[in-house]
Amino acid sequence: MTMRAIDAINRSEYVVGVDTYISQIAPLLKDQKVIESSMGGEVQRAKKAVTLAEEGHTVSIISGGDPNVYGMGALVFEFIAVSSCDFDIEVIPGVTAVNAVGAVLGAPLSSDYAVISLSDLLTPWSEIERRLGSAAASGFVIALYNPRSRNRPSQFSRCVSILQKYRKDVPVGIVRNGLRYGQKVIVTTLNSVMDHEDAIDMKTTVIIGNEESFIWRGRILTPRGYHKKYEY
Amino acid sequence: MTMRAIDAINRSEYVVGVDTYISQIAPLLKDQKVIESSMGGEVQRAKKAVTLAEEGHTVSIISGGDPNVYGMGALVFEFIAVSSCDFDIEVIPGVTAVNAVGAVLGAPLSSDYAVISLSDLLTPWSEIERRLGSAAASGFVIALYNPRSRNRPSQFSRCVSILQKYRKDVPVGIVRNGLRYGQKVIVTTLNSVMDHEDAIDMKTTVIIGNEESFIWRGRILTPRGYHKKYEY
Repeated sequence: MTMRAIDAINRSEYVVGVDTYISQIAPLLKDQKVIESSMGGEVQRAKKAVTLAEEGHTVSIISGGDPNVYGMGALVFEFIAVSSCDFDIEVIPGVTAVNAVGAVLGAPLSSDYAVISLSDLLTPWSEIERRLGSAAASGFVIALYNPRSRNRPSQFSRCVSILQKYRKDVPVGIVRNGLRYGQKVIVTTLNSVMDHEDAIDMKTTVIIGNEESFIWRGRILTPRGYHKKYEY
Repeated sequence: MTMRAIDAINRSEYVVGVDTYISQIAPLLKDQKVIESSMGGEVQRAKKAVTLAEEGHTVSIISGGDPNVYGMGALVFEFIAVSSCDFDIEVIPGVTAVNAVGAVLGAPLSSDYAVISLSDLLTPWSEIERRLGSAAASGFVIALYNPRSRNRPSQFSRCVSILQKYRKDVPVGIVRNGLRYGQKVIVTTLNSVMDHEDAIDMKTTVIIGNEESFIWRGRILTPRGYHKKYEY
């Protein structure tokens, strides 16, 4: 968590968020009024926060990771835009899962990378498949958010089949609760990843290496190419 | 800056980094021995840090943003791997430019996104062009790192020509020194971005919206699609 986020929470009269994230910041909460709800209900949370801000209150809306990355950022702006509200708004960036999980795995991201959500709640699945194919065909390291849920158990295996068309048996990192309590890490490869399918859920981020990536002592490294350019 | 990074710096005997980044963390430095060098010399810095760690010292290597993203992370691991050294190493993630600049611009990233460096120092330019084309063709919001340097002034315009083949006049955000001193923000569109070419250098990150992105009160928003799914 960044100093800037802590400072914003300290300065807030109201803190609005999903109960999971509110409990993670519990040690920071003192006099703030807390409005928490369970997962889902994003629109209601955004609406409540905007209403409080309109009344002149200082409000923090909590997202996990970075609020821009599949978080509350865009929704809050969309809501303000259609509501013609007028007050100051600041987005405070955070460490999103691709970077948190990249750090846990070692240094898999050093090359260009693509971030793709496998949730088709807001994006058509055909579009997601197209993005997976084009990212895999052009050498991006790929981070998969929302890789597998109970409501769509088969999409992860369809994703793996697409990636296998373009990639050899590259390293794959599976991290559940990255840098949070209960962290679990599996390092495997693309052709073996389906053996670990049951370990993958909505709290998991999956990183697919590119053809340059390799496994070293349980970590995934993607060289930046210094070994081609320099002598050690 | 995260609490975890501050804690690691506090616990270090040695802090190694480029002078630009060392000066940014100057308020945190007390008893630590500081080894700073100018930009370039990455291999020497990694080598020095590894040598100190081998001698049993606690060493922090400072990167700007996230150490995995075009930072020192992979180089340090590559160095340790070829040297067969053996000591604990922890990568502490940070807020990389795409997320910092995304926050400055509003909420441009809400959809899937691709991170691409235009520096061809370690990646062939033909490969970079291929990645630009495939990301642009498949709806990714695109973040360009190292967009333009004195040694390769024409690559940014070549990049824009490639993007224009696939994208209409989408929003473009240009942020120099994002969330650092001297921050400068320009919000424009793909067909007008070359008017601002001189504002773009190695301290700049450029975000290219997708076809859904729009400009609202000087910010760039990419809807997640809630307006298609929900009534406000």
